[in-house]
Amino acid sequence: MTKTHFQDNLDRLHGCGPLKVWSVIVTILGDFSETRDAQISGRVLGLLVGRMGITNQALRVALHRLRRDGWIEAKKEGRTSNYFLTAQGWSMTQAVRPIIYTDDIDRSQTVRLAVAPPQMSVPEIAETLPKDAVTLSGRTAILVGQSDNLDPDWLITDFADWDLPNWTVTAICPDDLRADYVLLAHNVRALNLPHPSDLLDRAVLRLLTLHHWRRLRLRHGPLPDLLLPPDWAGATARRAVLEILTTLPRPPLADLQEAYEQENGG
Amino acid sequence: MTKTHFQDNLDRLHGCGPLKVWSVIVTILGDFSETRDAQISGRVLGLLVGRMGITNQALRVALHRLRRDGWIEAKKEGRTSNYFLTAQGWSMTQAVRPIIYTDDIDRSQTVRLAVAPPQMSVPEIAETLPKDAVTLSGRTAILVGQSDNLDPDWLITDFADWDLPNWTVTAICPDDLRADYVLLAHNVRALNLPHPSDLLDRAVLRLLTLHHWRRLRLRHGPLPDLLLPPDWAGATARRAVLEILTTLPRPPLADLQEAYEQENGG
Repeated sequence: MTKTHFQDNLDRLHGCGPLKVWSVIVTILGDFSETRDAQISGRVLGLLVGRMGITNQALRVALHRLRRDGWIEAKKEGRTSNYFLTAQGWSMTQAVRPIIYTDDIDRSQTVRLAVAPPQMSVPEIAETLPKDAVTLSGRTAILVGQSDNLDPDWLITDFADWDLPNWTVTAICPDDLRADYVLLAHNVRALNLPHPSDLLDRAVLRLLTLHHWRRLRLRHGPLPDLLLPPDWAGATARRAVLEILTTLPRPPLADLQEAYEQENGG
Repeated sequence: MTKTHFQDNLDRLHGCGPLKVWSVIVTILGDFSETRDAQISGRVLGLLVGRMGITNQALRVALHRLRRDGWIEAKKEGRTSNYFLTAQGWSMTQAVRPIIYTDDIDRSQTVRLAVAPPQMSVPEIAETLPKDAVTLSGRTAILVGQSDNLDPDWLITDFADWDLPNWTVTAICPDDLRADYVLLAHNVRALNLPHPSDLLDRAVLRLLTLHHWRRLRLRHGPLPDLLLPPDWAGATARRAVLEILTTLPRPPLADLQEAYEQENGG
């Protein structure tokens, strides 16, 4: 793969949306932290984000912010630092692993329709509803799973035998989210996959693809997968992304460390 | 039964709410019109409503209004007129017979929850919903049976596994309706039933009980019976009323005609 090919790929992935550096770091640490004790050296981090076009200065700011917010910790080792997720960062990352890395939709989850009691104001209702509820009107929403956090004064009914009108489909997957998913699927499918020997390029494409998918997927809960047809934009994007994650598996950290040392005259 | 007993009974039933004379006539003609050709003479009508405390003048006004509105027709016969329901009056009366005269709730009727599309205004929604729908919020309502008259743009789901909070119970059976049913059940149970030989008294008590029940029952559709516990106020009133209708069966019109002639030295 030539540098130009790599730049084309990078452009395609950058075209999927702006990168927040701290969020890219979370994606990277999450990808490498299948186990609680995984650590990644600052040098490898710098190498990876450098390939993405992120400066060392921006990396330092992001790492500082993530440590301050309790997402990551650092351990000095000689002239470099090793970074790893805090207990909280790790458990939050673990919690979303199944929805990021698999297409295994838990269809046993119950969808419910909830009508707020008349004494609640619309702002109170919005505050009370779980983050991933979909609001159909000021006082009526679709929820998934447990509704224990709602006062028993809510009217809650199983959402069954639905036949979704268009406005409801749009409420469940707003147009901008759909457009972002369509773009991601398209750009991921257009990638020129690097040769297996191009360790760094492959790692960077994997991580950027993963990052954009994660960024979009975490904007909503399970409702689109439970209520929309199996070819809704998010499902199509997931298939494209999971294919890339399989084709470009996560490289061992030791290999990346070696690549760093080669690039920097070891 | 003494006159005083009859007056007590009358007071109890009058205590259930005001009488609209035209509506009392519809109750009477409906009760006597199991078949399309049933006719009731103006004299018997006058005798019955007279016992209820309705003047002949009020009766004439009501009959005039009902003929003008296409509910009833009259046929002269000698010095009196015979009254009967028009085809339309009869079919409207027949349509509600099952819900007035039986406790046979059709539990196969599907209850649905409907959310209006966002482009509809709240007044438009209220206009579109069937008369017996129960509104839970400006944009969400409970319906029974077919929802074919609603645009496919409505979100409609079966209303299942409900656990009704109090405000929903009140929406389905408002406090004033409940209070009216409680009063009707109480007053009907307190009636001093006349001896079987008191033909006219028995007929009048039957008709007034039937009238107040009909007046309340036609204020709502099947939703309370389908969604509220079996001892909701309307069901309790129904049991009390149906007991009276069984204890005081409808007398043959010929017997009432004879009673008129006896009273008037026929």
